[in-house]
Amino acid sequence: MKRLLVTLKYRGTNYVGWQVQQNGTSVQTAVQDAIEKLYGTRVDVTGCSRTDSGVHANGYRFCFTPPCETTPFKVIASLNHVLPDDMGVCDCIEVDEEFHPRYSAVAKEYVYKLYGGRARDPFLNGLAWHYRGEPDVELMNSAAKHFIGKYDFCSFMAKGSKIIDTTRTVFDCRAEQKKGYVQISICGDGFLYKMVRIIVGTLIAVSEGKFTPSDIDKIIAAKSRDAAGRTAPSEGLYLNRVFYDLKEVSEHVGKQL
Amino acid sequence: MKRLLVTLKYRGTNYVGWQVQQNGTSVQTAVQDAIEKLYGTRVDVTGCSRTDSGVHANGYRFCFTPPCETTPFKVIASLNHVLPDDMGVCDCIEVDEEFHPRYSAVAKEYVYKLYGGRARDPFLNGLAWHYRGEPDVELMNSAAKHFIGKYDFCSFMAKGSKIIDTTRTVFDCRAEQKKGYVQISICGDGFLYKMVRIIVGTLIAVSEGKFTPSDIDKIIAAKSRDAAGRTAPSEGLYLNRVFYDLKEVSEHVGKQL
Repeated sequence: MKRLLVTLKYRGTNYVGWQVQQNGTSVQTAVQDAIEKLYGTRVDVTGCSRTDSGVHANGYRFCFTPPCETTPFKVIASLNHVLPDDMGVCDCIEVDEEFHPRYSAVAKEYVYKLYGGRARDPFLNGLAWHYRGEPDVELMNSAAKHFIGKYDFCSFMAKGSKIIDTTRTVFDCRAEQKKGYVQISICGDGFLYKMVRIIVGTLIAVSEGKFTPSDIDKIIAAKSRDAAGRTAPSEGLYLNRVFYDLKEVSEHVGKQL
Repeated sequence: MKRLLVTLKYRGTNYVGWQVQQNGTSVQTAVQDAIEKLYGTRVDVTGCSRTDSGVHANGYRFCFTPPCETTPFKVIASLNHVLPDDMGVCDCIEVDEEFHPRYSAVAKEYVYKLYGGRARDPFLNGLAWHYRGEPDVELMNSAAKHFIGKYDFCSFMAKGSKIIDTTRTVFDCRAEQKKGYVQISICGDGFLYKMVRIIVGTLIAVSEGKFTPSDIDKIIAAKSRDAAGRTAPSEGLYLNRVFYDLKEVSEHVGKQL
C-alpha cells in the first residue's frame, strides 16, 4: 500500500500536543489508537510538527502507510468513524515514499484568535484568548508588518529551547478584525518554540501602548527573550495550514517568493 | 432597584433547554443559581422563550430585579464571574416595570447551522448538524423564500403541541453558504413547537430533490405535519436575536413592516 498524507483538524483542549508524552494523551496517540482500531495492528504515524499542549489545528498533516489495501476515500470515512469527536480527517492523498510531512514542508501558517471586552463568549471558550482589554487592531496590524522578513528571531523563542539556528523567514503577518474576535495570521518557513504566542503577546503590548510598532525592529535586534512581550495562552493558537509547494505560499501571501 | 433586561449567549449542549424541568439542568436554573451565588438570595428570572434541549442562543433575553443596588455594568462583570463557562452575559440594560421579555417581543430570529460532506469538523461538533449529503444552498434558498408571509404553519408544528392559533408571520427566511457551513436564518413574529427544525428538515428534502421549491406552498396549504420533511436535530439551532422594536426588525430584514 502507498504512503498517505492525511489532513487533520483537531480541538487541542484535551491533549498534551501532537507528540507522544508521559503526562497525558497526545493527538498522535489518539490517531494511532484509531488506526489500530481500524486495522487491528499498530502503525506509526509521522507528524508535520510538534504542537504545544492545548493548541488546535485546522490543517495538521501526518503520514502513515496502511497495513492493507485501501483508498484515500475510504480512509477519510473510516478514520472519522473511529477518531474521537474532537478530531476530524478532512483530506487524504497518496504521496511518494520519500515524502516527509515535516521535512518536505516549505511553509506553515498559524492563526491566533483573541477577543476583548468584559463579556465572555461561550462559543469561543477554550478556542480563543479572552483578553479583557480592548485590542487596537490597526495598531497591532502596523506592528505585525515589522515581523515580515528574514531575521534572527531569538527574542521570540521561549527560554530553555536548545535550537541553535534561530533565523527564520516570516512571509506574512497580519492582524484583522473578524466577527466577534481578532485574528492574527503568521506564515513563515519555520517557527521557534512558542514564537507565535510570544509575537501575539508582543502585539498586545503594542496595543496597550507599551511598545510602538517600530519598536518591533529593536526587539528583534535585541536578541533577548526579555525584550519581547509576554507569551499569549495556548488556547487561542491554531496550526492553520502546512505548505509543500512554494508556489502555493506565493499565492497565499500574495507575493512572489 | 430597577428591572434589568439581560442578553445571554449559551451553548445549550449540556442543558434541557431554558425552562426549569425535572429531567436535567436547565439554563434558567443555572442562571438563578449564579444570581443566588452573587446576592445570597434566590431571585426569579423571566425568559423570552422556552428553548428545546440542546439548542443554543446567541442572544437570549431574560429579566430580573436585583435584590440590592447595582448597575447594569456591574451585573455584566459579576454574573460572568459566577456563570458556568458555557454561558456569557453580553449585554444588560434597565427596563420599565411593565416590560416583559416574552410578551414585549415583536420578532425573533433563529439561525440553523449545518454542513455536508464526509469530513467531520471538530470545531462544529455539537454546534452544527453534520448532514452528510451535499446541501444545494441555492435550491434551499429558493425554497426558503416561500416561507415568507403570514400563513397557518401547522404543517410545521411538532405533533402533540396544544397551540390552537397556528398562524404566524415569517418576515425573512434565507439559506446562505458561510465559511465551512450553511446557515439558514428565519425571522418571524413567533414560532410553533419545533417549527424552525421542521422548516430546515424540509429545506434539506428540497436539496435532496424530494420536493421542489414551489412545493413549499402546497405543504403549507396541506395543514398536516406529515406533508413536511423531517425534524432537523437540535444541535444546529440558535436563538439568534429577540426584537422589541418593529423598526429594528424592518432594518434587519431590509423591508418596511
